[in-house]
Amino acid sequence: MASDHSLSIQRHGPTGVSLETDRVAAEEPLEIRLDGHPVAVLMRTPGADLELLSGFLITEGILTSIGQLRKTEVRPEENRVLAFLHEGVHVDLGKLTRHLFSSSSCGLCGKATLEAILCDFPPLTQPLIVADSVLLAAPAQLRASQSTFESTGGLHAAGLFSVTGELLVLHEDIGRHNAVDKVIGHGLLQQLDFSQTFLLVSGRVSFEIMQKALAARIPLIAAISAPSSLAVDFAQKSGQTLIGFLRPPSYNCYTGISY
Amino acid sequence: MASDHSLSIQRHGPTGVSLETDRVAAEEPLEIRLDGHPVAVLMRTPGADLELLSGFLITEGILTSIGQLRKTEVRPEENRVLAFLHEGVHVDLGKLTRHLFSSSSCGLCGKATLEAILCDFPPLTQPLIVADSVLLAAPAQLRASQSTFESTGGLHAAGLFSVTGELLVLHEDIGRHNAVDKVIGHGLLQQLDFSQTFLLVSGRVSFEIMQKALAARIPLIAAISAPSSLAVDFAQKSGQTLIGFLRPPSYNCYTGISY
Repeated sequence: MASDHSLSIQRHGPTGVSLETDRVAAEEPLEIRLDGHPVAVLMRTPGADLELLSGFLITEGILTSIGQLRKTEVRPEENRVLAFLHEGVHVDLGKLTRHLFSSSSCGLCGKATLEAILCDFPPLTQPLIVADSVLLAAPAQLRASQSTFESTGGLHAAGLFSVTGELLVLHEDIGRHNAVDKVIGHGLLQQLDFSQTFLLVSGRVSFEIMQKALAARIPLIAAISAPSSLAVDFAQKSGQTLIGFLRPPSYNCYTGISY
Repeated sequence: MASDHSLSIQRHGPTGVSLETDRVAAEEPLEIRLDGHPVAVLMRTPGADLELLSGFLITEGILTSIGQLRKTEVRPEENRVLAFLHEGVHVDLGKLTRHLFSSSSCGLCGKATLEAILCDFPPLTQPLIVADSVLLAAPAQLRASQSTFESTGGLHAAGLFSVTGELLVLHEDIGRHNAVDKVIGHGLLQQLDFSQTFLLVSGRVSFEIMQKALAARIPLIAAISAPSSLAVDFAQKSGQTLIGFLRPPSYNCYTGISY
């Protein structure tokens, strides 16, 4: 399935209205089944469904290793991926609804949310040192490799870079969490050592992006745009380095030491 | 609670590193309880919690009217809102997990997703005619009224406009769905006639934004950025007018007739 669709639009401009052809980013549901049971439906841009499945299962804490999977089957024509667990592997599907349902009886706060997540995903202890020149060159590399954004303006991008600035993998998706999951899923399938990589996202950083990166043990997260307060709090507790507004010739370092 | 937080950052620039104070958009969980039962936790920017509650319950199809609520209680210090139903009102909490779990046995596709939603929220039959000059003036009005974005760069905005171009209400939030829910919630609490309004969002439009607007019966949705393919498909079926790339002096009209 294509990552964009062509359609006819009316273009309203200073000289009047014209009929034109436009391209929009594709959005389709993807159903994830574990041992035959539907566990989630993600709205995603078609493509890299195996990567999305792998990343999602790990970054949401459903699996601790993709080695727990016996078999996977991607059925793009059905918008469905099937995953089968090795015998004896048990998963807690309650993790999926962690953000949706809460049974806390005391007051709910960001602090409690973060601490619950840090129980599942322990903090990192080893920061990654990345040269300024490498960081500042990354946004242009990300943009140069984005294919669909140029034609639709509608996709989020996530890229994983080596410490020396090599773009290891890039994915674009209508959902920014999906773009991150696809990139992480690719790394998992390639058995990449995430401790020597950094993640760059095209937009903003919420705490969920930080959580997904921590699940993969990525020590440095950079964003073209702004972080949220909870993303910064999370990074302080998780030992991750968080960089925002990465826009040459400067950037903001919210936590950690990056030089 | 403030909609942004101050913190110390390292600013890395061409002339070296400086310690500066920066402001980031606030992100905190909000627990929604119905008759004492926790039904959802939203990650949101604190503020306008009653509006968010009202909008969320309607746009997710949990309630059909906010008149079904007997009482609401906002507890910002606990990040919690309590809603109590009138006796005899029954709600289907299964709606909340509609996007998360699916029991479809045939192939899943965007078409099926849309049709299920259009069963809950019937299509509109009356388009809204808005003058070009009104549409083209709206983005500047939205931006001028955004207070937190200027200081943090981290918030999505949604604004509801009258057909003559008056900005009726604007909300900013770390989550773009929340910004839309807050605006719609405000309109519901004010018993606004949505049929004579249009919604403008600061970013992109996915089908979920279209769905939320349809739940409130808003006939025209405009976005500064791009729509997704499913948003366009949805608009075609829902009778909504969908405008994208609303950037003076021009805009794209994906569905409906807007002049």
